[in-house]
Amino acid sequence: MSAIDDLIKALCCLPGVGQKSAQRMTFQLLERRREEAKVLAQALLTAADNVGHCQRCRTLTENTLCSICESPKRQSSGLICVVETPADVMAIEQTSQYQGRYFVLMGHLSPLDGIGPDDIGLDVLEQQLQQGGIEEVILATNPTVEGEATAHFIADLARQHRITTSRIAHGVPVGGELGYVDQTTLGHAFSGRKRLD
Amino acid sequence: MSAIDDLIKALCCLPGVGQKSAQRMTFQLLERRREEAKVLAQALLTAADNVGHCQRCRTLTENTLCSICESPKRQSSGLICVVETPADVMAIEQTSQYQGRYFVLMGHLSPLDGIGPDDIGLDVLEQQLQQGGIEEVILATNPTVEGEATAHFIADLARQHRITTSRIAHGVPVGGELGYVDQTTLGHAFSGRKRLD
Ligand SMILES: [Zn+2]
Ligand SMILES: [Zn+2]
Repeated sequence: MSAIDDLIKALCCLPGVGQKSAQRMTFQLLERRREEAKVLAQALLTAADNVGHCQRCRTLTENTLCSICESPKRQSSGLICVVETPADVMAIEQTSQYQGRYFVLMGHLSPLDGIGPDDIGLDVLEQQLQQGGIEEVILATNPTVEGEATAHFIADLARQHRITTSRIAHGVPVGGELGYVDQTTLGHAFSGRKRLD
Repeated sequence: MSAIDDLIKALCCLPGVGQKSAQRMTFQLLERRREEAKVLAQALLTAADNVGHCQRCRTLTENTLCSICESPKRQSSGLICVVETPADVMAIEQTSQYQGRYFVLMGHLSPLDGIGPDDIGLDVLEQQLQQGGIEEVILATNPTVEGEATAHFIADLARQHRITTSRIAHGVPVGGELGYVDQTTLGHAFSGRKRLD
């Protein structure tokens, strides 16, 4: 059963999928969902080969600029929201409450792991703050030690350019990850954001 | 983000994977596991294109005969265990307690859905009973209404060929607590009770 074993093993690489789930998925795909299995295979290949980073906000996209960076209305909003991951962008977009632009760090500051400002694109962010047109930096990094440290670092950066900063506040559970918060909570976190002085 | 959206949607076709999990999987694959994504894509294509049914026991395999049907020792054991799915074979194999052969119905009798004996391969099973060499048919279909009906039907078939049949025991799982076992299982545990001598 080597093709079957290979598939079970490969499915185990998905986050949250253990041996038992992988077996169940494999048998279900092979017993009655072969077309869906092929569609999934093609989607994996297309995404793995074509998805890169947006040249402006660094989120994942298959184009030079993501659809949000392509929107003149959102680019001229004066708001830039800094998040850790593309999943955070998606979560915030699903609230439909935010109409500004984003900057995606693809991580957070982590000196012990050798991850400094340039590794999370803060040189690029600083250029954007310098270019003008940004009135408020909304810090939506995770409420973890690293996320808070990263938010403070960016707040300092914005202050040097005399740009207001705010931190999303209400609702996001401490220690939780933004990508897993429900829409209502995340909406409250945005509307209840506090200015950092 | 269409390649990303396509991947999220395709991952949702996996059993037990909802929108949130699919998003998490997509971002994790694209952020740091592209090679694993490609390996998974290849495993899906290989399995979908090459896996068929064993010509003897009907389980899923990429060969004409599965490895169990290829084993002379297991084929000459005189035991055939009838199960509903290839996942059942895998579960039984993992106990290492059974050394006979299998017959995989790929379903169960379901007259209301138009699934009759030939649809679950009982014509093939009858040929095998006729050929001789089988001393006991072990019925390991699920303890559901359809599984029980299917087991009874096959028991009648075996009886016509004067072959012993047995049904695997259903009851409280070893290590399980009575209070957490569902009613059906507990019912089986009672009706299947054995006298202590
Ligand atoms: Zn962008
Ligand atoms: Zn076989």
